[in-house]
Amino acid sequence: MLFWASFGLFAPSCSGITSCGKECDSGAALQPSAVSRELKDVPLKSDHYLDGSSIDWLHEEALEREREYIKKSQRSIRGLLSIWADSARVWLVVVATGIGIGVAGAWLDVLVKWLADLREGRCQASIFYNQVSCCSGLDPGELCTGWNTWSEYFDVKYLFAQSILQSFVYVTLAVLFASTAALLVDLYAPYAFHTGIPEIKAIIGGYILDSYLTPWTLLIKALGLALAVASGLSLGKEGPLVHVSCCMAYMFSRFFKQFQHSEAQKRKLLAAAAAAGVSVAFGSPLGGVIFCLEELDTFALESDVMWRGFVASAIAAVSLQYVDPFGTAKLVLFQVTSGGDTWRAFELIPWLGLGVIGGVLGSLLIKLNIEVALYRKNSALNDYPILEVAVVSAITAAVGYLVVFTRVQSSELVASLFVECDGGDFHGLCNPTAMWENVFLLLISAAIKLAFTAWTFGMMVPAGIFLPTIAIGACIGRAVGMLTQAIQTTYPNAWIFLSCPPDPTVRCVSPGFYSVIGASAMLGGVTRMTVSLVVILFELTGALSHVLPIMVGVMSAKFVGDALGKDGIYNVWIAMRKYPWLPPVDYNDKGQTAADVMRPFGSLVKLQDEKLTLKELDNFTDAHHFHGFPVVRGRELVGVVTWDKLRSFIDSNLSPETASKKCTFSSKPISHDSDHLNLSTCLENSIIQLRKEVPQALVVLMFQKMNLRQILFTHRGHLDGMMTKRDVVGLLNAHFPHTGALASNQSRGWQR
Amino acid sequence: MLFWASFGLFAPSCSGITSCGKECDSGAALQPSAVSRELKDVPLKSDHYLDGSSIDWLHEEALEREREYIKKSQRSIRGLLSIWADSARVWLVVVATGIGIGVAGAWLDVLVKWLADLREGRCQASIFYNQVSCCSGLDPGELCTGWNTWSEYFDVKYLFAQSILQSFVYVTLAVLFASTAALLVDLYAPYAFHTGIPEIKAIIGGYILDSYLTPWTLLIKALGLALAVASGLSLGKEGPLVHVSCCMAYMFSRFFKQFQHSEAQKRKLLAAAAAAGVSVAFGSPLGGVIFCLEELDTFALESDVMWRGFVASAIAAVSLQYVDPFGTAKLVLFQVTSGGDTWRAFELIPWLGLGVIGGVLGSLLIKLNIEVALYRKNSALNDYPILEVAVVSAITAAVGYLVVFTRVQSSELVASLFVECDGGDFHGLCNPTAMWENVFLLLISAAIKLAFTAWTFGMMVPAGIFLPTIAIGACIGRAVGMLTQAIQTTYPNAWIFLSCPPDPTVRCVSPGFYSVIGASAMLGGVTRMTVSLVVILFELTGALSHVLPIMVGVMSAKFVGDALGKDGIYNVWIAMRKYPWLPPVDYNDKGQTAADVMRPFGSLVKLQDEKLTLKELDNFTDAHHFHGFPVVRGRELVGVVTWDKLRSFIDSNLSPETASKKCTFSSKPISHDSDHLNLSTCLENSIIQLRKEVPQALVVLMFQKMNLRQILFTHRGHLDGMMTKRDVVGLLNAHFPHTGALASNQSRGWQR
Repeated sequence: MLFWASFGLFAPSCSGITSCGKECDSGAALQPSAVSRELKDVPLKSDHYLDGSSIDWLHEEALEREREYIKKSQRSIRGLLSIWADSARVWLVVVATGIGIGVAGAWLDVLVKWLADLREGRCQASIFYNQVSCCSGLDPGELCTGWNTWSEYFDVKYLFAQSILQSFVYVTLAVLFASTAALLVDLYAPYAFHTGIPEIKAIIGGYILDSYLTPWTLLIKALGLALAVASGLSLGKEGPLVHVSCCMAYMFSRFFKQFQHSEAQKRKLLAAAAAAGVSVAFGSPLGGVIFCLEELDTFALESDVMWRGFVASAIAAVSLQYVDPFGTAKLVLFQVTSGGDTWRAFELIPWLGLGVIGGVLGSLLIKLNIEVALYRKNSALNDYPILEVAVVSAITAAVGYLVVFTRVQSSELVASLFVECDGGDFHGLCNPTAMWENVFLLLISAAIKLAFTAWTFGMMVPAGIFLPTIAIGACIGRAVGMLTQAIQTTYPNAWIFLSCPPDPTVRCVSPGFYSVIGASAMLGGVTRMTVSLVVILFELTGALSHVLPIMVGVMSAKFVGDALGKDGIYNVWIAMRKYPWLPPVDYNDKGQTAADVMRPFGSLVKLQDEKLTLKELDNFTDAHHFHGFPVVRGRELVGVVTWDKLRSFIDSNLSPETASKKCTFSSKPISHDSDHLNLSTCLENSIIQLRKEVPQALVVLMFQKMNLRQILFTHRGHLDGMMTKRDVVGLLNAHFPHTGALASNQSRGWQR
Repeated sequence: MLFWASFGLFAPSCSGITSCGKECDSGAALQPSAVSRELKDVPLKSDHYLDGSSIDWLHEEALEREREYIKKSQRSIRGLLSIWADSARVWLVVVATGIGIGVAGAWLDVLVKWLADLREGRCQASIFYNQVSCCSGLDPGELCTGWNTWSEYFDVKYLFAQSILQSFVYVTLAVLFASTAALLVDLYAPYAFHTGIPEIKAIIGGYILDSYLTPWTLLIKALGLALAVASGLSLGKEGPLVHVSCCMAYMFSRFFKQFQHSEAQKRKLLAAAAAAGVSVAFGSPLGGVIFCLEELDTFALESDVMWRGFVASAIAAVSLQYVDPFGTAKLVLFQVTSGGDTWRAFELIPWLGLGVIGGVLGSLLIKLNIEVALYRKNSALNDYPILEVAVVSAITAAVGYLVVFTRVQSSELVASLFVECDGGDFHGLCNPTAMWENVFLLLISAAIKLAFTAWTFGMMVPAGIFLPTIAIGACIGRAVGMLTQAIQTTYPNAWIFLSCPPDPTVRCVSPGFYSVIGASAMLGGVTRMTVSLVVILFELTGALSHVLPIMVGVMSAKFVGDALGKDGIYNVWIAMRKYPWLPPVDYNDKGQTAADVMRPFGSLVKLQDEKLTLKELDNFTDAHHFHGFPVVRGRELVGVVTWDKLRSFIDSNLSPETASKKCTFSSKPISHDSDHLNLSTCLENSIIQLRKEVPQALVVLMFQKMNLRQILFTHRGHLDGMMTKRDVVGLLNAHFPHTGALASNQSRGWQR
């Protein structure tokens, strides 16, 4: 569309000079239909973006529409089929990604379970069975003899030797798994470390980082994740699963040319894939969609994206349920036994308290994590990532082995804490006489996990922060619940407890549900998400009456957390790595205008109209590798031209004969034999101009809503300055002291 | 912010002349803090908008930020408290609306049930009991003697006389209820008719229609809705409940000055209220949020809105469940007995078929409804709305009485159709020997309902289209399900049915679930919603495995429907009433640029700088009641000024002494004793300028994403033309032949 717009309105001067992007056809291109005929075999490629730059959404979407229009205007069966095929390919990738991540998620669980069980013992029949499948098929109550602990297997008799052997194998395998994961990541796919969500957010927002989504990264991340989780490090699989899902979508999309040429289409696919990833991670298909909307900020994309995300999530969840690795036919990770559908008003007090604790500890975790990340970057640790992983995993395993609640897998711990004491007993948790000991143990566990999580999240292994956060919150929540229950049973007749059933055998306070609230609050404090958290936890518990308490927890945690530090952990990492991502926050500019932050005219690299010869222009493009340049005549703005278009014009026109001709970008017709080259067709038409007196808030809003790359400020036709996406990101991150602390590579932006 | 921006950058000339919006304080206002001190008691009011115009979102949000900034900069306890109080008031309104609509929804159900039962008979004990409460407290199997049909009550013995009396009362009460509803609407609240969703969509998008949300409308709509539903007309309560919910939020918001001054804040509350309305209507809290996002297009608003909407929805659902009018403790309208969690691949064929039927019938319903609406508007019917309602209700009742499935309330019919034949039998539906009769009856019922719905939706009563659409779809779905079941049981060994269980007593095809798919497909065809429909129906059925089939139905219906006509029924009504609402569609401009559709320079009403005297300006504002005017010097754009600011400047400065002075809008300083009046502080700073060569698609996108009111097209500082929201709406509705067919009032736009 940009092309015919320029054709239609500025008649190109055709004197053997090739204009920008295509051959000159002597004015026959004035009719759109003629243009489309002429254009139909020209691949409408995206600009070449280098890793580290941002895509130009407006330009990409214009190309998109142009492609579609050309296909529609063909008016033949082939044209119609081609439109249909485009749409079919999108759905193919969406469905394939949904099924792929569902199946992958299921098998990852199997792998983790097997590896984790291996740390305790092995199956007699085959080492490839995990404990559950080894002991399946037994009658209830029958003792499982097929599964041996290592001391049984090696026939160690003495109790002391037994525990030495067990703990030795436990720690050694932990170190082995973790180091293998780190080694794999370090050697083969450095992008496979960490959670991946900050990068996915930035990529969906327009950041170019293709090497982040390669099949190799996919493989290493999935394998490394299984090893890292099984090693017992304080990390979860949720974030990395989102990354894996996006890698899959990217891999599938590479089969079709359509997505290679369009950065915008690719990103819309990635958004759907991210939803599917969350759906599998939590068994929460609606949570996936809402997560996508809230956290990945796909508000800015089209409404189509929501539908695709929903389809992908639902298919992923169904696939996971269909594969059903453990034969439980349950989708949810943590089954919550709803301890009576009712709750009492007095419980709001401990729940608000949990919210406050969640907010405070969440902020603390973020702060600690930042400090560790900065320390790692600026100390000798930076050079020995694998050693760091090995040492931390050894300490985690050794310390974890001491406390009963940290010894088990985090997911098992959480599942047990969420369940009420109705029958089963989890490591003495339900022993009413050991209440104080349990509370103490739970708080110790939470503290240990908090410390380890702050260190682990950012090491050279795939690591998600959701599960450890849930575990910390669940421990604290359970402790608070048990305390509340103890107070209630001790003083059943206090006025505050009058709403409880009079029968003392009927439970009034459900500590398991306090665990859920604690987990929600802690998640709220760490991630600062709202709706998606509640939806995910709602899909976990299922009971509508429990939504209100969860909301109370999440809301108070977010409120307290925001007071202690504005950003969630993902946004902090985005800022530290300096990705060009615009947080969807409401920016208050304190009365400042764009004039206060724009790059003024003087500091811009610009092209003077009718000043440079083609040879000089050639040198200019060699010297300045920006994405685009404003073209001015004096201070008057003539237009904007991208580096790619300049380059392609120069490459096809530079000859000894033309080298000394002056380049003009003005649209007035010049005679054929003049010594000017007309580059007016190279100018972009989609330039957005504002006055420099506009409030900054409006500028920020435009960048956020329209996904812009730059805005020019003009007054009565004169260029006053410019702002780019990076400038706006800088503005929004100005309050954060460590912006760019972990940034590695310089990026090629528009004028930077 | 607009104010200090103008102060800070153009030093106002202070010669006893009052500048725009506030008193001149001789330059002391150059520092933002000084300005804020000076401003703090000036109420920052919205512009005066007349009914029928659109708000200026950018302006409103700028005012919003300015208010917040002023409060924050007070740095006192009062300032902090005031910010806190602002936020508390928002939550107060959100929570009150949630509780209010939950309770209202519950009592509306009670009222409808009582009125509807009254058509059949009365309770001996008191006429104010409905049949269920009259017969409650009986042992299972015991006959209810407390409830009498009218023939029992009047002791009519003969069978013929009995049925005459019953049908007479049935029809008479139907006519009575319906006419009362119509009379109430016609006399007291003309805006209470119809569903309300088109208007709510337009209002949330920025349309000004305050009389649509008065307490009076609330009362009449709620009462009228109960009467209309009880009369047995082919309508539902879902859409009107959304309207009622918005009226409530508006009513609560009127208690606080904060919302009266801000059109933007008011709209954000309305969005949350709409979510609560959907939540109550369907018992689907998540569906409410997604509905808000998808159908009301609150994508364009902030992410805060989603959270508020979620809180409101959850509170509304909990309130509804808490009031629990029928003592069932169930939130959902239609309990689905999940007939086995599995489905077979061959069932995709009938389900795709249902999708196609849904798409075709949905489009047919929309087309019929348009024809009826046009006929009503242009015929004598327009003058007798109450008579029309009476006649239609009489015919509906009479025809409905003949067919067993149309005699019962639609909600009861749907509930019965969704249930499998596992025990109960609904009017012989489960009689296997009468399969063909039942299929025939179901199809007849669907046809009758389709015809009546097309007529009823748009009459002078509150009427939603959701429930009748669900009923039509459920009838067709059940019929298709029964046919499929019959084929399967007749040919159990055909290869296509090999996936069915071999035991013939185990049900393979579940016709009740086909009903759900049919309803989804029909809804998809009529409303063209996607995600929200699936979520609502997912929350109804609860089984994840059933999400895929529902998606298949909705998707194929939307696909087929879109091929037959682009817009859903709400968008059709918005177009027919010509509300300035921008559909969030992807606009393809076929290569045209803004130059092809903008209002060119020549046709704009503009102000020439330094041409008019103040007296002439006074006459100018009297003559032209547009919201704003571009100010030009020759063709050069100086700025934009709103009517309100001009008016306030004139009102405070017009005197015999100043009347003949020339008005200048330029910012260059002029000497105090000159014969010019400086109005430069009246200019707006937030002007967005594009070039007229930009693709139309980009212009449309900017209007959609930024909720703009106008864009100016300039080239090298010269004004080329302008486009307003109404122009863009016209562009997007160009394909629809009946745009504006039902529009009543002329609106006061920007330059129209």
